[in-house]
Amino acid sequence: MRLDPSVAAIRTAIRHTLTTLPTTPVAPDRRPLVLVGCSGGADSLALAAGAVFVAPRVGWRVGLVTVDHQLQEGSAGRAEQVAQWAREQGFEPVEVATVDVGTSGGPEAAAREARYAALAGAAGRRGAATVLLGHTRDDQAETVLLALARGAGPRGLAGMPAHRLHAGARFSRPLLDVPRSACRAACAAQDLVPWEDPHNTDPSYARSRVRADAMPALVAALGEGVVANLARSAALLGADADLLDELAAGALERCRTPAGLSAGVLGGLPAALRTRVLHAWAAELGAPRAALTHRHVAALDALVMAWRGQGATLLPGGIAVSRRSGELTGG
Amino acid sequence: MRLDPSVAAIRTAIRHTLTTLPTTPVAPDRRPLVLVGCSGGADSLALAAGAVFVAPRVGWRVGLVTVDHQLQEGSAGRAEQVAQWAREQGFEPVEVATVDVGTSGGPEAAAREARYAALAGAAGRRGAATVLLGHTRDDQAETVLLALARGAGPRGLAGMPAHRLHAGARFSRPLLDVPRSACRAACAAQDLVPWEDPHNTDPSYARSRVRADAMPALVAALGEGVVANLARSAALLGADADLLDELAAGALERCRTPAGLSAGVLGGLPAALRTRVLHAWAAELGAPRAALTHRHVAALDALVMAWRGQGATLLPGGIAVSRRSGELTGG
Repeated sequence: MRLDPSVAAIRTAIRHTLTTLPTTPVAPDRRPLVLVGCSGGADSLALAAGAVFVAPRVGWRVGLVTVDHQLQEGSAGRAEQVAQWAREQGFEPVEVATVDVGTSGGPEAAAREARYAALAGAAGRRGAATVLLGHTRDDQAETVLLALARGAGPRGLAGMPAHRLHAGARFSRPLLDVPRSACRAACAAQDLVPWEDPHNTDPSYARSRVRADAMPALVAALGEGVVANLARSAALLGADADLLDELAAGALERCRTPAGLSAGVLGGLPAALRTRVLHAWAAELGAPRAALTHRHVAALDALVMAWRGQGATLLPGGIAVSRRSGELTGG
Repeated sequence: MRLDPSVAAIRTAIRHTLTTLPTTPVAPDRRPLVLVGCSGGADSLALAAGAVFVAPRVGWRVGLVTVDHQLQEGSAGRAEQVAQWAREQGFEPVEVATVDVGTSGGPEAAAREARYAALAGAAGRRGAATVLLGHTRDDQAETVLLALARGAGPRGLAGMPAHRLHAGARFSRPLLDVPRSACRAACAAQDLVPWEDPHNTDPSYARSRVRADAMPALVAALGEGVVANLARSAALLGADADLLDELAAGALERCRTPAGLSAGVLGGLPAALRTRVLHAWAAELGAPRAALTHRHVAALDALVMAWRGQGATLLPGGIAVSRRSGELTGG
């Protein structure tokens, strides 16, 4: 029997991720462990099926964690079904992580935060080298559009990184260049019945509206290539953002004075570094990153580049930054 | 009579451009000259009306150039109407530039190329410090979406720059943060009847499809702010691209060997600089920039980062690049 091309593409992507990952040290008698984060939806189910095939063939143990967000009726039973399937497939360990979702930052952000914390907790307890997530090329394109829609800077436009350290654990996304349709096809080819999350089609979520309306309109206007191209633009921006963040970290150190930052040194930086230095410094002072907008950074920048004796600039978190004797200080 | 807010916004934007522009030297007895590129459409007509008001008040002379592309029936008569209006308004000089549009790169690119060349030619003959163009915030947002749709890198995603040297002349875009609707409103408030270019609604142009379908779908899914936010993301990316291009120019010099580039020095560069250096070097070798894609750059990069004795990489323009003894050479 011929291997379905979508199954092959997913396995290839997972193999690439596992064989290029810098693994964390493990005891000499134990193979490294990878956990799959799996909701039971088509993307993460296809990911799990691929990982349980590929991992042992490249020297990895593979476990699975499914998160019960307790937000929908029957969520505990569904999580248990995913776990049961995983045990039958040979995942070890298999965990159901039950979380209480808060409200901070809105329902999507709160659910995401709780999910990542639960996955990171499992990775820490089990000593996993990474947690695989099932985000696809379509998710990446949607992420870029959502970032554009809020006027994000380059880091936001770079979308989701292929690897990321978060909450003390490593997360990896092998499917960022695999179309969502391939995940559905892979499920069908392997007789897997994915769970359809009603949130994915709920028009009260911005991502659902992008998926249902905005992205199809873009494809209609500009052709099928637009999804892959959005993902490619994101990857190019990610490489730029990495370098600029590194340069800005060095520039921040050069700007430091005993009590704050030197306006003179700041003023000599190119705009791309100056705004990053100001953003990083504002976060250091205690301004919550999620609340720091380009307007705050622009107001700080005006203290440097458009100085005319103006008063203190107020940042989120009750922080006031002022300029005196060529020095920016805040607290 | 109260000044219409759209007229005020356009005048403010033009004043900002003219008062922050580094002017080219002019004879001591003459004020600097700005030319307005005007098709007679709503955006450039509103721009022209604003410029003829603002320019003399900030010490500038103001002229107007309208380009007859000879692509539509009656184009010569329409250009003459615009010129006639301009003379009545007090523009001096007023020129109709008649151009022959080629076919290279497709009809949109060929018309644009001919138009810029004609405007640059007029600026050169007249000694103008800059040519004002009427691109709006909506044009900028469309440009960013079109760049995303072709998978452009950061420079493409940065959209149209506010100032640019091209074909030996400076071009400035005062209206990049002014909505298109303000230009229409300004024309109406000043009893100006703009010309409706049928190309703008011709669905055979990608830009027209973005304008008619993709952008309204994005606004419907994500809110009215999306247009301004796309333009803001573009401005942030522009600052980054400026810095990275400058850093890459320095890195290219450090990579040079007598006959080409050092693979070892290249390999030590961060990805964001390495790909820019390779792109710039390929263009130096004679590869036409418009034909150089990310695939070509990726193939060059593989000679550096994934060297396994592979053969020459072929670039557009019949250029072959090979690696020997740790050196990339091409021609």
